[in-house]
Amino acid sequence: MPIKLSELAKKLGCQHHGDDCLIDNVADIDQAQSGQLVFVYNSKYVDCIKSSNASAVILKDEWLENCDKPALLSDNPRLSFAKAAWLLNPLKSGTQGIASTAVVDASADVPASASIGHNAVIGADVVLGENVQIGACTVIDNNVAIADNTIVYPNVSIGHDVTIGSNCFIYSGVVIGTDGFGYVMDQGTYLKVPQLGTVRIGNNVDIGANTAIDRGSLLDTVIHDGVKLDNHIQVAHNAVIGKNTVMSGLTGLSGSSVVGENCIIGGGVGIRDNIEIADNVMITGRTFVSSSIKESGSYSSSVLVDSTKNWRKNVIHFKHLDNMVKRIKTLEKQLKKLLPVNTE
Amino acid sequence: MPIKLSELAKKLGCQHHGDDCLIDNVADIDQAQSGQLVFVYNSKYVDCIKSSNASAVILKDEWLENCDKPALLSDNPRLSFAKAAWLLNPLKSGTQGIASTAVVDASADVPASASIGHNAVIGADVVLGENVQIGACTVIDNNVAIADNTIVYPNVSIGHDVTIGSNCFIYSGVVIGTDGFGYVMDQGTYLKVPQLGTVRIGNNVDIGANTAIDRGSLLDTVIHDGVKLDNHIQVAHNAVIGKNTVMSGLTGLSGSSVVGENCIIGGGVGIRDNIEIADNVMITGRTFVSSSIKESGSYSSSVLVDSTKNWRKNVIHFKHLDNMVKRIKTLEKQLKKLLPVNTE
Amino acid sequence: MPIKLSELAKKLGCQHHGDDCLIDNVADIDQAQSGQLVFVYNSKYVDCIKSSNASAVILKDEWLENCDKPALLSDNPRLSFAKAAWLLNPLKSGTQGIASTAVVDASADVPASASIGHNAVIGADVVLGENVQIGACTVIDNNVAIADNTIVYPNVSIGHDVTIGSNCFIYSGVVIGTDGFGYVMDQGTYLKVPQLGTVRIGNNVDIGANTAIDRGSLLDTVIHDGVKLDNHIQVAHNAVIGKNTVMSGLTGLSGSSVVGENCIIGGGVGIRDNIEIADNVMITGRTFVSSSIKESGSYSSSVLVDSTKNWRKNVIHFKHLDNMVKRIKTLEKQLKKLLPVNTE
Repeated sequence: MPIKLSELAKKLGCQHHGDDCLIDNVADIDQAQSGQLVFVYNSKYVDCIKSSNASAVILKDEWLENCDKPALLSDNPRLSFAKAAWLLNPLKSGTQGIASTAVVDASADVPASASIGHNAVIGADVVLGENVQIGACTVIDNNVAIADNTIVYPNVSIGHDVTIGSNCFIYSGVVIGTDGFGYVMDQGTYLKVPQLGTVRIGNNVDIGANTAIDRGSLLDTVIHDGVKLDNHIQVAHNAVIGKNTVMSGLTGLSGSSVVGENCIIGGGVGIRDNIEIADNVMITGRTFVSSSIKESGSYSSSVLVDSTKNWRKNVIHFKHLDNMVKRIKTLEKQLKKLLPVNTE
Repeated sequence: MPIKLSELAKKLGCQHHGDDCLIDNVADIDQAQSGQLVFVYNSKYVDCIKSSNASAVILKDEWLENCDKPALLSDNPRLSFAKAAWLLNPLKSGTQGIASTAVVDASADVPASASIGHNAVIGADVVLGENVQIGACTVIDNNVAIADNTIVYPNVSIGHDVTIGSNCFIYSGVVIGTDGFGYVMDQGTYLKVPQLGTVRIGNNVDIGANTAIDRGSLLDTVIHDGVKLDNHIQVAHNAVIGKNTVMSGLTGLSGSSVVGENCIIGGGVGIRDNIEIADNVMITGRTFVSSSIKESGSYSSSVLVDSTKNWRKNVIHFKHLDNMVKRIKTLEKQLKKLLPVNTE
Repeated sequence: MPIKLSELAKKLGCQHHGDDCLIDNVADIDQAQSGQLVFVYNSKYVDCIKSSNASAVILKDEWLENCDKPALLSDNPRLSFAKAAWLLNPLKSGTQGIASTAVVDASADVPASASIGHNAVIGADVVLGENVQIGACTVIDNNVAIADNTIVYPNVSIGHDVTIGSNCFIYSGVVIGTDGFGYVMDQGTYLKVPQLGTVRIGNNVDIGANTAIDRGSLLDTVIHDGVKLDNHIQVAHNAVIGKNTVMSGLTGLSGSSVVGENCIIGGGVGIRDNIEIADNVMITGRTFVSSSIKESGSYSSSVLVDSTKNWRKNVIHFKHLDNMVKRIKTLEKQLKKLLPVNTE
């Protein structure tokens, strides 16, 4: 469904500059073809506009002099472009209805606008909201509630009593609501501690492929509104993630830890159990958060990559840092004796 | 099914102190309601007893003077509480029988007490023990044996010839018995090495959501009795994990490495290939074990989190540790010349 | 199907030494039984030949004097052994045809030689090549193309429009083609950016259990021919992996990063977004690649494991490396004043 550029301008609240044209879709600036809309978010790429085959470009006012194409002006070209992309590529609604091979318990509440894929299995007392889409081979255990417009992709597993808000995306391979990792030693072997809490997920939450969120032991594991989790994330029992926090792939949040609102957690980060992270904290990739972070700001703990040859020469001294400090202290003490007073 | 506190005391082997009452369930001390049983495992939380709405509490004898509620006395309140939780929340047995949509090969041996979920697929010559539960959409390949009382959750994949002991929990998304990662270079491309071993899993083993355990190349990958694996763990081909060892989430055990008994391995730990870790070893979170550990004890290798600003100032010097040591040595040599003999 | 050793010698292009015999299978040298073929790839293990019950051994010419068994001589015993293992254990072809419970869209193109497992779901306009095997409960969305001889194991999820080459192994739990992790801030909450690219996977690519490969945002995510990915790997949107590169488990490749050809990436490695790694780069386990690597060679950034006691003494100084360097500089300056010119 092509849209006129002038029409897009109105819908996006952008000023339209130059000729009007029909826009089929958005595209990458280097790969764009006629009929496509591109964007520039950084002055570095302004020069790409002229060589692009795109029909129009979203950019900032100040770059207009370098632009030989119809344009939409935006203070935030990236945001305007994302909105244009949605207008040109609206979410597909599910093939409404329940697939013939899906197994839906008679007590489940499935509105006519919901869609359930082939071979999906829906347990007793499950409640689905309007327009919910459940993917093929996804298994939803008893008493789960999923609110309006949430899309659950194929091969997802959701445990009993979990609640999920509206407008969420739950990607394939996600596991929500399996037992937390809780044991107590009993005469030399581990006794599993029953995990009696559940998982509560807010609205507008995205959960990436193969991410796992454990149910709470006594209290619940809670993911607040607007949280975005990437792939392969581990959220342990009783953890809490505050509103609008994003976490990149392969990050692990240990048991009973609480992450604040509006945090940006990088990929491969590890967060210890039973700690708290304040609001508005950024944690760079591969950091290990071994203690609470009480103030907003950016935190890190990785080591910089080096050639293995250099790394090998240096890394060995990490085991002797304390000795190095002692040697420095000794040198300072010795020198002090040799130096006249007040010498610097 | 409420139980009288006095009855619980008998079953747990705890001394009962104060009035009797009916207990519905266990709960968190802050959230507990009437009819619920809570526990205190640390003197820090003794003060919470009075403000709790719980009907009874499990605690140590020595804290009784601060307790205004009926109590069960235990040297190990956490353990007694876990046992009480099981008494009040027994494992549900499966909806006995084979779901109408499950596909079970005619040669599979499925006792009447076993339960197979909807759309599960059970291959040829599979042998299930008494009370085994297989979740919906779980796929079990030919010739797998699973012993009594083991519960396999939905969307699990188990490869041919794998054996799993009794009383195990295998959570959703787990993959057991895919090919190990073995290749040999052949004229510039990699030739896959056939993975002819299998995976043998003992009794009382728990395997967390989305954990993957590869089959052995020639020998088997072996998980011994009582091992507890958290979510997202990677166990590579020919690895061996000793009895009662626990591993937290996102930890990777590389090929042919052997972890001893009764080890506690933190989250996000990496263990190199072809190494050995002794019994009774603890490894703290995010450690990278690059060489064998021959003695029991605790081991670490992470870096502490800091503000990104400070971290940036410091991390750069990691690449120059060897140079720092050389400079210290030079200073020591130079100073030695300046100092009188035997001066400290 | 046993093969005569002399026959194997011909097929492998190895010189046959000693008696002929029937070979049933390959085995580990310590566990081998009569009728089995073993190999020695390192002079350390030559002594194991005599105590082995194997019927024959593949080894280098130069070790023949220590060998009391029929032998095949090879410059690369590991490679010859892998080839022998394939001859003795050929890939099983699928149970040809479409399982009765599989759901295959009428528009899908499935040749008679392909095999589709129970409860698998195949979308519209999917095109499968000759001998393709699709596992049970695997879900393939619309318009996916999979070329000849590729094997997709159970419980895999493949998103719309993804293309996969020939002779690939896609293991259980793999998720290909879910949305990349792209958001743009819009008045305090994150707006998801539509992910309009797809994933293109070449020939002879293996993808390990539970690995996730996101679709591109505007361009595609691309995995070139011969790439081997282990379990639990994260490949973010728009990433590109060059020919014949291997990556071990739990490694994360962030958005828009490009890895060259013939790289060997260890386990638990993190690769930042928007960087490039040259061809022929080796990255050791647990390295965090925070900037582009422009030259071939080996790179590292992990810290060596130590006893927690020692580690604790040393790690604290990491936060003060800059201060240590300053103290060394001060010492050098002070000493310089004390030392006569040209003293070393």
